Amino acid sequence: MTTANVAVLGATGAVGQRFVRLLQDHPWFRLTEVVASGRHAGETYGDAVHWIEGTIPANAQDLPLRALEDDLDADVCFSALPGGSAGPIERALADRGHNVFTNARDLRLAADVPLVVPEVNPEHLALVELQRRTRDGFVVANGNCTAIILALALKPLVDDFGVDRCSVVSLQALSGAGYPGVSSIDITDNVLPFIEGEEEKVETEIPKILGELAGGAVAPSRLAVSATCTRVPVLEGHTVAVSVHLQERASIDDLCATFASFSGKPQRLRLPSAPGRPILVRRENDRPQPRKDRDAGGGMSVTVGRVREDPVLGWKFLVTGSNTIRGAAGASILNAELAIADGLL
Amino acid sequence: MTTANVAVLGATGAVGQRFVRLLQDHPWFRLTEVVASGRHAGETYGDAVHWIEGTIPANAQDLPLRALEDDLDADVCFSALPGGSAGPIERALADRGHNVFTNARDLRLAADVPLVVPEVNPEHLALVELQRRTRDGFVVANGNCTAIILALALKPLVDDFGVDRCSVVSLQALSGAGYPGVSSIDITDNVLPFIEGEEEKVETEIPKILGELAGGAVAPSRLAVSATCTRVPVLEGHTVAVSVHLQERASIDDLCATFASFSGKPQRLRLPSAPGRPILVRRENDRPQPRKDRDAGGGMSVTVGRVREDPVLGWKFLVTGSNTIRGAAGASILNAELAIADGLL
Amino acid sequence: MTTANVAVLGATGAVGQRFVRLLQDHPWFRLTEVVASGRHAGETYGDAVHWIEGTIPANAQDLPLRALEDDLDADVCFSALPGGSAGPIERALADRGHNVFTNARDLRLAADVPLVVPEVNPEHLALVELQRRTRDGFVVANGNCTAIILALALKPLVDDFGVDRCSVVSLQALSGAGYPGVSSIDITDNVLPFIEGEEEKVETEIPKILGELAGGAVAPSRLAVSATCTRVPVLEGHTVAVSVHLQERASIDDLCATFASFSGKPQRLRLPSAPGRPILVRRENDRPQPRKDRDAGGGMSVTVGRVREDPVLGWKFLVTGSNTIRGAAGASILNAELAIADGLL
Amino acid sequence: MTTANVAVLGATGAVGQRFVRLLQDHPWFRLTEVVASGRHAGETYGDAVHWIEGTIPANAQDLPLRALEDDLDADVCFSALPGGSAGPIERALADRGHNVFTNARDLRLAADVPLVVPEVNPEHLALVELQRRTRDGFVVANGNCTAIILALALKPLVDDFGVDRCSVVSLQALSGAGYPGVSSIDITDNVLPFIEGEEEKVETEIPKILGELAGGAVAPSRLAVSATCTRVPVLEGHTVAVSVHLQERASIDDLCATFASFSGKPQRLRLPSAPGRPILVRRENDRPQPRKDRDAGGGMSVTVGRVREDPVLGWKFLVTGSNTIRGAAGASILNAELAIADGLL
Repeated sequence: MTTANVAVLGATGAVGQRFVRLLQDHPWFRLTEVVASGRHAGETYGDAVHWIEGTIPANAQDLPLRALEDDLDADVCFSALPGGSAGPIERALADRGHNVFTNARDLRLAADVPLVVPEVNPEHLALVELQRRTRDGFVVANGNCTAIILALALKPLVDDFGVDRCSVVSLQALSGAGYPGVSSIDITDNVLPFIEGEEEKVETEIPKILGELAGGAVAPSRLAVSATCTRVPVLEGHTVAVSVHLQERASIDDLCATFASFSGKPQRLRLPSAPGRPILVRRENDRPQPRKDRDAGGGMSVTVGRVREDPVLGWKFLVTGSNTIRGAAGASILNAELAIADGLL
Repeated sequence: MTTANVAVLGATGAVGQRFVRLLQDHPWFRLTEVVASGRHAGETYGDAVHWIEGTIPANAQDLPLRALEDDLDADVCFSALPGGSAGPIERALADRGHNVFTNARDLRLAADVPLVVPEVNPEHLALVELQRRTRDGFVVANGNCTAIILALALKPLVDDFGVDRCSVVSLQALSGAGYPGVSSIDITDNVLPFIEGEEEKVETEIPKILGELAGGAVAPSRLAVSATCTRVPVLEGHTVAVSVHLQERASIDDLCATFASFSGKPQRLRLPSAPGRPILVRRENDRPQPRKDRDAGGGMSVTVGRVREDPVLGWKFLVTGSNTIRGAAGASILNAELAIADGLL
Repeated sequence: MTTANVAVLGATGAVGQRFVRLLQDHPWFRLTEVVASGRHAGETYGDAVHWIEGTIPANAQDLPLRALEDDLDADVCFSALPGGSAGPIERALADRGHNVFTNARDLRLAADVPLVVPEVNPEHLALVELQRRTRDGFVVANGNCTAIILALALKPLVDDFGVDRCSVVSLQALSGAGYPGVSSIDITDNVLPFIEGEEEKVETEIPKILGELAGGAVAPSRLAVSATCTRVPVLEGHTVAVSVHLQERASIDDLCATFASFSGKPQRLRLPSAPGRPILVRRENDRPQPRKDRDAGGGMSVTVGRVREDPVLGWKFLVTGSNTIRGAAGASILNAELAIADGLL
Repeated sequence: MTTANVAVLGATGAVGQRFVRLLQDHPWFRLTEVVASGRHAGETYGDAVHWIEGTIPANAQDLPLRALEDDLDADVCFSALPGGSAGPIERALADRGHNVFTNARDLRLAADVPLVVPEVNPEHLALVELQRRTRDGFVVANGNCTAIILALALKPLVDDFGVDRCSVVSLQALSGAGYPGVSSIDITDNVLPFIEGEEEKVETEIPKILGELAGGAVAPSRLAVSATCTRVPVLEGHTVAVSVHLQERASIDDLCATFASFSGKPQRLRLPSAPGRPILVRRENDRPQPRKDRDAGGGMSVTVGRVREDPVLGWKFLVTGSNTIRGAAGASILNAELAIADGLL
């Protein structure tokens, strides 16, 4: 297989930088275009970006920054565009024949856009055929960071025991708000009990991700989800306290075994960004912790712990994962890898 | 009314220091004895204590530190003794005629010990009569910090709408772990998903606090409670995300009105430590926040916010309160004030 | 004495909010006008402001927000305008007869503007006569937050021992950067080694503050100052590590006595915002600490500790103070109180 | 060359864990013994240790924990023993023929113990011959974490320009205090102005490290050092603000070139733990930062920035480095590598 040229849209932002970093030595993708809003026209990426962590990858440093209006060469576009403006731009790129893998929220619930977590619902990718009827390219979305982490933890339970109700409280990291994001004055010695639009995303995206593709459409799962999303003074790594009602009987050991043995299509296909095990299970009672578990599997594994009975819904546990890798840039990249393996590119 | 002499047991610890501070200018109580484990024998309080915040109150500075084995003069003892060893010491003090108001966990579930939140179940205080049959003094307990804050928020809902299921996730402050408590290496840029024994306390204390006193015993409420307790990098102020199932229909405005108008016996009696309003309701979507709301009502009010529908249990909201004042030292003091007003002292 | 009506310029910003809070119950000043840039025209202060701490004072809540272009009624204007644009606006206000006490940097070094720390150089206030020759009003500046805290600590040493060299490293709080100020992503688990323009301010303002007024001009002190200014994850309270070369011999006890007995004109005049003691001395080796000492004297005292010999410059110590009260809003207010006491208003 | 068997003393502590991690895949050393105080006798390392970061290396997990009194097989011992008790134990090990590379403070200033930073004073290693006259083994010490980082930054200046006075203020990380170390209650939203014994270490160790070996003894450098050491809420990475008086003229570019081109014996010998460049120079004004620069060169490079003139001493800059790698465990390991390359083992 040859290497595909890829573009990153919104390349100077926090998620854009994650894309650039993850694409640094990617075996299938070569970063050839970085795109941002017009005010940096003519600058190189290295000059325009306020790089947040470590050092800018050498392969990106000297790329000229393209404007959103420019024609792009890359077949594959990774979008880190801001929600609200991303949708029309991404649709227009698809019209012009580009294949867009987006982390933006705008098109996640569109009927013809697959919302894919490759270990959970790889078959949804077939929705792109709907888009291809009227245009050359397509858009594939990944979920909100918390929704992805949660979907990974729920999928094996859905498969083995059935889940009909799920109540979650998230403790979300600062990197999820982008840069500059949350003011240090707001979050030092504090917790913020609200993240704009986040709870709605979790409550609506999970049913679509866990939904069934039939007759060219996704019928959302009837799983009821309640989400409370909070922000805590943690740099990276979302932690989600999950309570679930299972339709079948289980034991703690059953649940742990189900989590630990979970594997999906990315693992079978050995996709480059697929972690060996999508879910790690820790039996110590003080895990998962964001600082200690966010890098598991190169940031692509989530870690489950404290599986125990719940007097109200039946079972509860916590799950932690990297919000900027598994929950954002790595998610889009894994989607693109799946699309390639499926012959869609 | 004359001023009662009071002793603080475990006076050098974090909660002990809170007692000392809150008793500084108390209209009904005069701090005359500070008690700690023997190794500081002969020292003054000011010399023995590693004072955590601000300056040691002048009235405590020069008190000689008494040992636990010493005879005490004070009728009223406030106990900040560590769980595990507190129970036998507190029972022995009651045997010798002292009236003990304890923050320790040991006796909270004992059948003859009232577990009181004065706005919620002041009538439980009558349980002390059971103790008095066999001894001169008595022990009154307050709940775990999270349980108290939660009980205050649940009580008006129980009264007005009925509550049969309740699922909570707490984001607890560092001061709840005492001093030195949590290592800075463990909690910086991190969340800890586990607090030893905490979830069991919340799940068992809430039913007793909301239980019914009849025939000289408390029949626990049949309210099912599920708790997940986490530690976050916040100095003071626990935040609890609460989901409840109500037995009657309600609207958001109904719930907010119920919270805001809640008042109890301490308010009617105008007890010195009673806040004007036990529950403050904030309608902004970014409240409650621990740093901004922990001092409400001198640390004796809790703040409720984000009241909204919950797709799984029906309703959800967040509540924040001071864990060391309303959730610990202030709770014991308000209990003692209630006992005085009830003529038990 | 009657109460003066005062206006706060830049009232919605972080320092502006401090002014509003400190003016809440001021015995000499009544807040009658709040002024901000035009985009909030027609709104009340309560609607326009993103209030950072606690609750908006009731007396400010409903004040209509005035634009900078509006005519003002208040004789006394407190300016929390941003550096860069403040200077011309403040001069224009003085032209129109207002007396401006500014926290902005623009005019601090202007030859006809007194740069006053009332305990240090109250006589410099006479410089306003230069301004009054050509206009009705005047501008009085206070120093940069770090410069004020440092000037207070240096003044008694200058008086008693002479100081010719001073080297400082500051660990500055987040509130000094305004709101939203420093991104939480930049400062969590981190230190920033640079604050734009800060070192130059300290190095140039200290000589003017410690300079001598003669012949209608301030001759700067020849004290050489070197400053390194860093930002640390602390909400409020700057800490400065100071090394000094004294011209006369001294002992640790001499220095501590000099610091502790320091007092100035605000103390003699008993100005409302003057702390009883401008400098508190702590002999424990783990003080001063910003969280424990920033509120000393209502935020108007600075705390000195760890006075000890320095193998290079002779003596060293640390000093901590509130950067938003003594270092900003409280500084301007104390200047205005001094001007009133001096009969300049 | 064959692989040497090594033991780690104090293996369960924070620095001990760093040794274990750094020895995980070391080309010259094989970890065969882990030693700790007696209370864990009979346990495996994996069972006894409270592992702080990530996962215990597989090669250490099942090693039986040895007691300090046990006979050891390893020729090379790395000591992470606590200061105060380390010295006699390390001397006794040397008496029994072991070669000890210690991070403990006890013997750093002993006349016959070399205090080595391999890029700075590799020739001091010859001091071990003094020890070998009376025993089979020897002890080599590395400096205090701040002293090592500072010594690296000073050495090229000493060589190229001469340095006679140096004034430093350190902002030190939490990991430097070991585990559990600093209470989260003490350091959240705070700075601690004092670290027990730290300033004396910096002030006395730097002259020995920069001293001259002649006639079988080290004559300390006459460089005067003043240190103020503070603790800040940063997990790892000490930052030091340095002012120096140079004996020769220089420009900023001279200094930057001197830092950037600095290289020493470890680089010439290509020792396994030697970074390519001991000192990295950043020209951006917002570097060095501990979170961004602590991992440079695998934690073995220090990063210098903000080189600029100092009105008092002449020049100033900041330097950041990993306190647990370059400043502790990695320092001992590099010393051992140098000793092997020098044929001392």
